[in-house]
Formats: sequence, structure tokens, C-alpha cells
Amino acid sequence: MQHEKMKQMLKSLLDERAFDDTASLVSYGYDGSFGQYIPDVVTQPCSTKEVQAIVKLANQYQCPIYPRGAGTNLSGGTLPVQGGIVLDFSQWNDAPVIYPEDLIIKTRPGVKTADIHALAEKHQLMYPPDPSSSAVCTIGGNLAENAGGPHGVKYGVTKDYVIGLEVVTARGDIIKTGGQTIKNVTGYDLTKLLVGAEGTLGIITEATLRLIPKPKATQTAMIVFEQLEKAGQSISQILTSGVRPSKMEILDHHAVNKVVDYAGLNLPRSAAAILLVEVDGEPEALTQEMTTIKQALENINVTDIKIAQTKEEENALWQVRKAVSPAVVESGYTKISEDATVPLSKIPQMFKKISELKEKYQLNIVIFGHAGDGNLHPTINANMRDPIAVKNVERAVEEIFEYAIALGGTLSGEHGIGTMKKPFMTRELGENGVHLQKAIKQALDPDNLLNPGKIFPEVGESRLVLQHD
Amino acid sequence: MQHEKMKQMLKSLLDERAFDDTASLVSYGYDGSFGQYIPDVVTQPCSTKEVQAIVKLANQYQCPIYPRGAGTNLSGGTLPVQGGIVLDFSQWNDAPVIYPEDLIIKTRPGVKTADIHALAEKHQLMYPPDPSSSAVCTIGGNLAENAGGPHGVKYGVTKDYVIGLEVVTARGDIIKTGGQTIKNVTGYDLTKLLVGAEGTLGIITEATLRLIPKPKATQTAMIVFEQLEKAGQSISQILTSGVRPSKMEILDHHAVNKVVDYAGLNLPRSAAAILLVEVDGEPEALTQEMTTIKQALENINVTDIKIAQTKEEENALWQVRKAVSPAVVESGYTKISEDATVPLSKIPQMFKKISELKEKYQLNIVIFGHAGDGNLHPTINANMRDPIAVKNVERAVEEIFEYAIALGGTLSGEHGIGTMKKPFMTRELGENGVHLQKAIKQALDPDNLLNPGKIFPEVGESRLVLQHD
Repeated sequence: MQHEKMKQMLKSLLDERAFDDTASLVSYGYDGSFGQYIPDVVTQPCSTKEVQAIVKLANQYQCPIYPRGAGTNLSGGTLPVQGGIVLDFSQWNDAPVIYPEDLIIKTRPGVKTADIHALAEKHQLMYPPDPSSSAVCTIGGNLAENAGGPHGVKYGVTKDYVIGLEVVTARGDIIKTGGQTIKNVTGYDLTKLLVGAEGTLGIITEATLRLIPKPKATQTAMIVFEQLEKAGQSISQILTSGVRPSKMEILDHHAVNKVVDYAGLNLPRSAAAILLVEVDGEPEALTQEMTTIKQALENINVTDIKIAQTKEEENALWQVRKAVSPAVVESGYTKISEDATVPLSKIPQMFKKISELKEKYQLNIVIFGHAGDGNLHPTINANMRDPIAVKNVERAVEEIFEYAIALGGTLSGEHGIGTMKKPFMTRELGENGVHLQKAIKQALDPDNLLNPGKIFPEVGESRLVLQHD
Repeated sequence: MQHEKMKQMLKSLLDERAFDDTASLVSYGYDGSFGQYIPDVVTQPCSTKEVQAIVKLANQYQCPIYPRGAGTNLSGGTLPVQGGIVLDFSQWNDAPVIYPEDLIIKTRPGVKTADIHALAEKHQLMYPPDPSSSAVCTIGGNLAENAGGPHGVKYGVTKDYVIGLEVVTARGDIIKTGGQTIKNVTGYDLTKLLVGAEGTLGIITEATLRLIPKPKATQTAMIVFEQLEKAGQSISQILTSGVRPSKMEILDHHAVNKVVDYAGLNLPRSAAAILLVEVDGEPEALTQEMTTIKQALENINVTDIKIAQTKEEENALWQVRKAVSPAVVESGYTKISEDATVPLSKIPQMFKKISELKEKYQLNIVIFGHAGDGNLHPTINANMRDPIAVKNVERAVEEIFEYAIALGGTLSGEHGIGTMKKPFMTRELGENGVHLQKAIKQALDPDNLLNPGKIFPEVGESRLVLQHD
């Protein structure tokens, strides 16, 4: 076993919060993506000083470190691909502290995102980022991956709400970035560089999150389309109507049918797509905003619009969206969630392409996602024990990436690069772009100790391999 | 003269858009801050290829390069402190292109910010960042400095609206960062690292800016305070009332009196402070929002609230804010604008401190600024030919910085570090923080060619010196 001396020192530092029994090592070897890797030791630090001590040991023994939250991430960002020390932050969940007069919350990495939401709401405030995994994921994971969610269209993503960080650097220094103010231009923006860096540039031990006043009310509409093109047109039409929807989610024909099968919801099976649109704010304004949206859509002959009249009706509409993921899981096999993202006007083209790939590779693909920001989640359901199916998934996913980039979009809107998308980095960023990114990694983590094996392609790596032969 | 050969090559590359006559060199030697430095040559590139060619020549001759917009910046970010090549982008102002269906604008650096605003509005869209210099400053300068403005409280700053860049790197590569989508987590966020880096990490040659639907209407209120503490309390009270003001500006007693003297506006000279609050959105909602604000303030016994009933009245209220800067300039001598920024709840303490400094150093200081995001602009008017006054300004500004940091705030909310605030970087970021920032500079610009002499303190430099003896 490697690093036996280091493991002993970790155990004496952390007591029962450092362990290396086989069962634990195995269970820390995977996340919400693919692949299984066995770390050498798992640690559960609960203070910045403990993180610093671990990082200093890792430096001494030149041993890789992998920060980890709840392990829900979908791109392999937490996988201990080169062995070493897992930093499991899930136990470092001291109650976050709210400063309502400053509109900020300070939190440690292990706190559940849902707990941040609840604390803010208790003070009539809102922390807008709302990844689907909110109930179980940690804020530390959200910070590492720059998590998004349906609120993105109006409120942006995790990064837009992080104004300060405490960070343990690769060499074990404790630094502060940003602060407690929304406006801050003192030096380079390390805060926004570290959020979304997938734990490869520094280890976040505390974050200061900004809050906004909680909107007083919401209203939701469901729009049913017989043609996919109209759905695409409607997205731009709504976003240029003067109204800012707080959510705008889309389900394609296949997603609609999965949901009908799974949850027995009353939706037209023939629909080419369904759009769910939420507006939020002063109650007086919402009815007017919905009227504005309705008129904008009528101008392009879209008329099948149902506006929820009660809270119950509104919840029922959102049930449709919430049922998609369980419906896909329930239909058997493995769920592969992608998140290629395209400029708004290119959404119909992306739908069309994926429809073609569905035929070409004979795959079970549904599309849903955050229409308001072009962030689609084509989700494949495949038997990953069937080598032909695996190859087909690999090729289809690759074509989705290629096409997203060709349309002016990106490999990943909110899931991150991790191990899954690194073969494609160069196609999006170019050789010179990757060179610059690597220069930053080299500058901040010269020994490549922080979450190695992530985000940059290995030499010659340019294709997706979900399972090696 | 240095680099004679290089200058000849620049002239043959750019023709009359490269020059080194003394009059020009002198006029490119200063900006909106202090100090005068003479560059070797001024260039006016009008394409990415030209910028690349200049950067390659600068590499060949190891000659510094200083990107420059309209030169309005207040922290010395554009000063050619070590001589070399000025890149004057003001001539590269090809009409920006709007893609209304994608809610984006693509622009070259020399375009005036006001032209971006106008183009967006023509399509019922809005580019929210609104620095006071919008009418004359360039978007390139806004990008370099991460400019803010009154809209910050609701809409954030320049960085929040930049989703993609084309950049010429220090070694002369052309790279793209980000793209055309709001959500993008492909690799490190170079976009948000380069915006606000003051031209020290790369030269921005194109930006993709995201737009939002233009709010249909605005409504404005003026609140007059007899006690400064109440003004501070009111800011938090409004921001936690459930309403999100689109602007919230404050003027202190001295600012109010300057404005009365200068513009003859009808304001109570005895006021301790005045708060101007704007809300925007659906017209139906605004009256309700103003009522909510009024009730929230009445709960803390603030009752002197005047809500503009017509567009004319609204414009008249904003005249008050707009008159402050000219009023300060008109009162003679040199205007020194600071922008220390503090957490919202600390605004009253900052006001009190500045009031003390006014007495201590016998200075003419007025305070106004963006109350909603804690970004204050204490503005000093002093005779910079009087060595005692200069020393007093230096010490007062230093105390303002110190106190802002002590309150959990920052040296600079939106003006940048430049040459003016670099002596204080270490006090805010710590030795380890500065070390990390320097590592990034070293990684992206190893020869220190891009805007040298900026943002990092020289060895031993820890005090503000506005004028050397």
C-alpha cells in the first residue's frame, strides 16, 4: 500500500475521520458519472486547519487530493482517478450563518444546498441557484462545478452569487478571495476563477454567498406545441417580449411520453414539445406579464397556453418537469445525462440533430432542459453491459458535443468537464486556449496534486470512452 | 530614442495610425487619475490581426504595451508608466452587431458604451452596466476595469454581462474564451478572469455581451433624512422588503449642499443625507413596490418620502444625483474620486469615519455613491499644488482604505487598482493572496509586457503618493 506513513499521520490527525477499509474505499470510488477508482484513504476534515494539514501532508508525500461533496456530479469531477486522498466534506456542515442586513450567507462546504435555500427564505431572502440535486448535494460541490438549474434564465448560476471565498491553496496556504461586497475589483477575480474549477486550482473551505429579496409570488404557464420549430421560435419570442421569466423549461415529444407513461399525467401524447414558463415578482405584475407572453405568442400563432389559476395547478405543472428524470431512470438501464448548451436561436436545430442521432444510433434519447438559457439535457437510456450500445452512446454523445460547438455553443452548460468531457476540450477552446488554461493550472498547482486527471485531455486523447474493453 | 526599428515597423504596419510626435505622446500620457508618463509610440489598431502583429513586435523588442480606451479611468490603469507602445482602441469602433434572438451583442473594444445601450434599446433589450462615463467611455475600458454604475444593486456589473471574449495573449496568440451562451462551464473561466484584469493578462479584441429584456417602466422616490444612521438603516430595510430596487443612490449632507449651490435645486440644506430609489419593471407593479418600500420605511419612522408622479418629476430627482460630480468639479481645484466599498450594514460607520477624516485633515470631502451595493464615492476637492494639502489627501485616502478593509469591505468597488491603489493590495489580500495573483500574472504574461507597473505593489511600496517631492 502506498503512503503508509502518511495514512498513519492522517489517522492520528483526524482519528476516526480518516479511514481506509476496503468497503469505504470502494464506496468513495464513484460518483454520478461513470468509472470506479479506488482511493488510498478517505478523510473527513471539519476545519480549515485540518484541510491545511492534509494538504501539507499531501505535499510532503506528493499524493493527489480529491475534494468531494455528496458525489452527485455527472461528469466525473470527484473520481479519485489516480488514487490518493479523498477529502469528504459532507461532515463539515456547521450551520451556515446569515447576515440579513448585508444580504449574505457564510457557509462551509459540506452544507446541503437545500439548507442554504431554507435559511435564506426564513429571512424573506433567496439564494437563486437551484440544481435539481439541491435536496442532497452540498454547496461545496455546487461551488466546484458552478452548478446551475432552472433559475439560470433570470438569475444566473452559482458563480453569480459567490462574492468571497476562503481557500486552501495547493501548497497549503490559507487565502481569502473577494469579500462581502457585490462590487469588488481589487486584483484578479480569483473567486470566479475558483468557482467552477472543479477543485483543480484550490480547495474551497468557506464561501460568502449573496442573497436577493425573495420574490413575493410566482405564476406558471404550460404551452403545448405541435411543431418543434414553433417551440424554438417561442423561446426567443418570450425572451424579447419585455418579460423576464424566472424559469423556462422544455420537454420534447419523447420526454412528454415518458412522463405520461411514468406518472400518468394528463398530457397530449402527440405534442412535439411542451414549454413551462414561470414568472415571479409582485403579484400585481404577474397576470400582466402572463398576458404579455400570451400576446407575444399569439403573434406567431401559438395559442395552446394554459395558465395555472391556483397554487395546486401550478404545482401540478411543475410535476411534469420533475417527473422526467425518474421516468427515464424507471425505464431501465443506465441514464446518461448530457448538457450541451447552445445559443437560444439554435435550440430547434439542436433538437433536430438529436432526433437524427436517435435514429442513426437506435438510441433511447429524451430531451428536456433549461430552454431559457439554451442548456439542454439530452438524456440517453442504454444498456451499458451491451458493448454495441456503449459504442453507440459514445458516438452519439460525441456528435452532440461536435454539433453544439459548431452552433456556437459549449460542451457543458452546468455539469462540468471532469473526466467525461476532457477529450473534447481542445475542439472547443483550441490548442492556444487549452495552453493558457494549463498555464493557470501549472501556476496554481505546480505539482498537480489537486484533483488530477481532470478537465485536460491526456496526450492523444480525443474520443469519449465510457467503458474500456 | 528606444526601439527605433520597432517604431518604423509599426509605422509601416499601421501607416498614419502609428505616431510618435511629442504632442501626441504627451496627450496619451495621462488619464482620469494622477501622473503623467510619456510613451514611445501610439498605435491605433483596427483589427485583431493588427493587435497580434503589434504584440509580436512588442515580444521581439521586449517593449511594454498599454491598451487604452477613452482614458476616463480614475485609478491609473491606462498610464504608460514604463514607456512603450500605447494601443489606442478608440478608432476600432466598427458598429456592434446585435443578435436579438440570442439576446447578445458582439462588439469591438473601441465602441462607446452609450452606443451599446442605444443598440440594445432599439430592440427592446437592455445592457445594464451604466458607468457614469457611459457617454464617452469605451466598452473596452469597461471590460478592462469591470466598470459598474448605479444599476449594480439589481443588475450587477460589466463582468456579469460578458459571456465570451476574443483575446490576444501576451505571446501574440489569438484565443476565444467563453462563447455565446449564459451557461458555460467548459474549463477555467478566463472570461471573468480577463474582465477586470486591467489589461495585464491579455488584450481583449472582441466581446460577446448578453442582454436582458428592457424593463417597461421605472418609478423613483427621494427620501430625506435628518440623521445619517436612519439612512443606513433604510438601505437594509428597503433591500429586505421584498422589492429589488434598480438603483439606490445616496448623497450626504455636503453633497446635497454642493448640489444646491451649483444647480440651485430645491433641497433641504439641513438634510443629513438623501436617498434616491428607483424601481423598474411592469408598470402595474411599480406603484405596489413603492408602497411596499414606503411601509417598510414607516416601520422605522422614516416618513419624508417623495415619489415622482410624472416622468418630468422623475428626471428632476435624478438631476440631483447627476449634479454632484459637476458641482464638485465646479468648486475648484482637483477632484479625487475614491470608491471604497463596504458591506451594506457598514455604510453608516463609513460615513461617520469619513466625516471624522474631513475634520482631522481639514479637507473638502463629499460622499455620494451606490448605496444599494455599498459602493461609496468619497470625493475630495483639493489644491494639488499645495504640498500640505497633498499630504493630507494622501493620508485621508489611506485611512479610508484601511477602514473599508477593517469593515470587511474592499479598496475598490468599480474604479480598479491601477497605479493608485496598488500600495494597499497586500493589506486586503495578504501576502499569500498577492503571491497567488502574481503567479497568474507570471503564467499568462511571463515577460511582463502587458500594462506593466499596474496592480501589484513594488517592493517596499505601501503608502499612497499622489505627488513625488
